[in-house]
Amino acid sequence: MPRNPFVYETRVRFGDTDASGRIFYASILRHFDAAETEFIRSINWTYKGLGFPRAHVEVDFMAALAYDDPMSIAVTVERVGSTSYTLAFHVSSEGREAARGKIVVVSIDRSTGRPVPLPEELRAALGA
Amino acid sequence: MPRNPFVYETRVRFGDTDASGRIFYASILRHFDAAETEFIRSINWTYKGLGFPRAHVEVDFMAALAYDDPMSIAVTVERVGSTSYTLAFHVSSEGREAARGKIVVVSIDRSTGRPVPLPEELRAALGA
Amino acid sequence: MPRNPFVYETRVRFGDTDASGRIFYASILRHFDAAETEFIRSINWTYKGLGFPRAHVEVDFMAALAYDDPMSIAVTVERVGSTSYTLAFHVSSEGREAARGKIVVVSIDRSTGRPVPLPEELRAALGA
Amino acid sequence: MPRNPFVYETRVRFGDTDASGRIFYASILRHFDAAETEFIRSINWTYKGLGFPRAHVEVDFMAALAYDDPMSIAVTVERVGSTSYTLAFHVSSEGREAARGKIVVVSIDRSTGRPVPLPEELRAALGA
Repeated sequence: MPRNPFVYETRVRFGDTDASGRIFYASILRHFDAAETEFIRSINWTYKGLGFPRAHVEVDFMAALAYDDPMSIAVTVERVGSTSYTLAFHVSSEGREAARGKIVVVSIDRSTGRPVPLPEELRAALGA
Repeated sequence: MPRNPFVYETRVRFGDTDASGRIFYASILRHFDAAETEFIRSINWTYKGLGFPRAHVEVDFMAALAYDDPMSIAVTVERVGSTSYTLAFHVSSEGREAARGKIVVVSIDRSTGRPVPLPEELRAALGA
Repeated sequence: MPRNPFVYETRVRFGDTDASGRIFYASILRHFDAAETEFIRSINWTYKGLGFPRAHVEVDFMAALAYDDPMSIAVTVERVGSTSYTLAFHVSSEGREAARGKIVVVSIDRSTGRPVPLPEELRAALGA
Repeated sequence: MPRNPFVYETRVRFGDTDASGRIFYASILRHFDAAETEFIRSINWTYKGLGFPRAHVEVDFMAALAYDDPMSIAVTVERVGSTSYTLAFHVSSEGREAARGKIVVVSIDRSTGRPVPLPEELRAALGA
């Protein structure tokens, strides 16, 4: 991770948990979704009006997260390709690594559904 | 309820529960959403391509629902107005009443966002 | 509403929206859930380890909310009863009233599932 | 995939979609969750009362899924280890491959949170 990654602060909400008492595995993606938008805002970009579906998502869980646990979600750019880019998420809770994930975002033409080159401003904003 | 209401059969999923061990209160709405679409299909209508936002939603919980509990969701038309209609949901689990809810669906013009009369075919399909 | 209600600031996330382009009606409850926990924290109470299921939830939608719209969620105590209390939520977006809701929270004995008197400290914290 | 995999039939619900008009990437996991429980039931096992958190989840999206699209989710056992197993999910919609995913499920001792050997009956049910 770069020295100064973007970090989004949140907490495990009651509705994020399941009957095991931990966070339900899919719930963390709602927080990645919020972290991603705030990261994108931080680099002065916006998804509004554009088509950026996800081609891939993955998460590894390293430690249990329970109701109200704080989560610091660091967002970094892992790769910028010609028609897609990869964001990495590192989740820690009170200094302990709890999860990490990544998503691959694709730039598509909304009328054809086909991949198109990433806008140059977005490539620049992502640090390519 | 009418004698032969439409009934949608489902179960409490693990991701629907929360750390209390019961269904999280908002999760039941995902099942109402599925039940509503299947009800609408059963009356030969479809929401595809139209604007039908919800003006109101409410749920009363009468009994605990836990992971994997079966849910029979009866859907009935409670009211058909000029620009909106109300659907009622009765949830039972193994014969025991567990929850009931209702949603008020409004017909809008998607360009202006304003209520417009319900399509006649929809009024007829709803039994008005 | 009291003069200085607790206000929770958030935004409509991409995953909160649906194919209509607005917030999906159930998604707002995830934000109420977060707002409720932060409100409860603000009055120095905690739900940890206790059983407080919801007996009722309702929401009225007054204006469309779209991706990334800011939401200010004011939380107020509407009623404190012997075994339950009601919280009210008022959602505004850039000064415009967008939604309001309420939840009725019940205090139960987790072993029997039956309502029990609200803890005195909680009644006091809620301003009863 | 084996010749006769377990297949769970469902549909993209309105609440699963987002403002792009497609399924929101995290929503597919709610369907995997339902498919997994039904698969586990089909092999005469149950998660009730046990601790089986997920160590890893991933999904690849190959084609757009929109509101009301049917989804056939084939569930297969990809690997059975000593303390974990991997389930694979293949999602097709009207014969077209739409997504695939996998989850790694770990057997833990709920008091210590540490991995423990999978129960022998579960290993046998999974075909190990």
